Amino acid sequence: MAEDRLQQQMRFIIEADKLKEVFRQTLVTGSRRAENSAEHSWHFALMIITLAEHSNHQPLDVLRVLKMVLIHDLVEIDAGDTFAYDTKNMADQHEREARAADRIFGLLPPDQTGEFRALWDEFEARETPEARFAAACDRFHPMLLNCLTEGHAWRKHGITQDRVLARNAHIAEGSTGLWAYARRMIDEAVAGGHLPPGPGAPA
Amino acid sequence: MAEDRLQQQMRFIIEADKLKEVFRQTLVTGSRRAENSAEHSWHFALMIITLAEHSNHQPLDVLRVLKMVLIHDLVEIDAGDTFAYDTKNMADQHEREARAADRIFGLLPPDQTGEFRALWDEFEARETPEARFAAACDRFHPMLLNCLTEGHAWRKHGITQDRVLARNAHIAEGSTGLWAYARRMIDEAVAGGHLPPGPGAPA
Repeated sequence: MAEDRLQQQMRFIIEADKLKEVFRQTLVTGSRRAENSAEHSWHFALMIITLAEHSNHQPLDVLRVLKMVLIHDLVEIDAGDTFAYDTKNMADQHEREARAADRIFGLLPPDQTGEFRALWDEFEARETPEARFAAACDRFHPMLLNCLTEGHAWRKHGITQDRVLARNAHIAEGSTGLWAYARRMIDEAVAGGHLPPGPGAPA
Repeated sequence: MAEDRLQQQMRFIIEADKLKEVFRQTLVTGSRRAENSAEHSWHFALMIITLAEHSNHQPLDVLRVLKMVLIHDLVEIDAGDTFAYDTKNMADQHEREARAADRIFGLLPPDQTGEFRALWDEFEARETPEARFAAACDRFHPMLLNCLTEGHAWRKHGITQDRVLARNAHIAEGSTGLWAYARRMIDEAVAGGHLPPGPGAPA
């Protein structure tokens, strides 16, 4: 029985390796290659343990936040990464990702399938303090990398300041401190010519 | 004051991005490119939340394990990744990594410098149940990837079964269940011709 459980858990761990080959629109700051969703998930989790004090809601259940963060992108193994400003693919994003969640979390023993699916649903719903803080860091992270790479993903896709502000304003629901920091970063990106002031082309 | 803290924390987060460009001897299972230490850290953390029940010691402080896991490889930004069977570079590995820990955790506000350094020291000392379980998963992870890539790193470096058994036996201190699973994996790798039976060349 314990052996069957471990076998099922290992199938999940092995499947997860594929997330290292799902690439995002952001670049890593050194070599400027595309970042993948596995290393994003690590950097995101590191932000959580470093910045937890900036959550609007205290105390925060940091373990539950970390569990959400570590599993949140696994659905991209099937559904791919959807760029934050890709309104076309965002239309059916949740449906595609929910199917992926069924398959991937379904590799685990039933109790863990339920636990991980509930964590993923909680993250997606963005209603609890833990999910709101996680969402704040998840949105902040690609903005930070864009600012460190002269606005790479924004410029590549013609994203303008107004869209960045609109798309990321919910950071304030998780952390007003992080949103204030992000506003200054965005202002600097505009001043530096890395993010055109809006309004730009219609979404 | 809060702003100064956030600035310091951001410098640490930005520095951490460099871990995505520290490459290991293991391969990712799909494209067979070298794995980097950031995505290893994520996969390792995912193992922790999936396999915590297999720790010899229960209950386990899973949050503390995750914090150790998320920061444990940051020292490689300065010290590089040391291959588990590289006895030459292992001689001064701890010294090199301790200097890196001083610099990298030193980017943080003083209370967090102390917290993260204590976590790193705890991981390195492998004396607490949390550090032993973390160490077990840290050693298990590259074995798993080696087994899934026909023994790539073992064959490349002429590593034999006896050395794999000796190097990884401490997995049992953290999890007898995981060590039993690893023993079966090693047997299968030998049977499949992906790991030569020992004894091999002297270490």
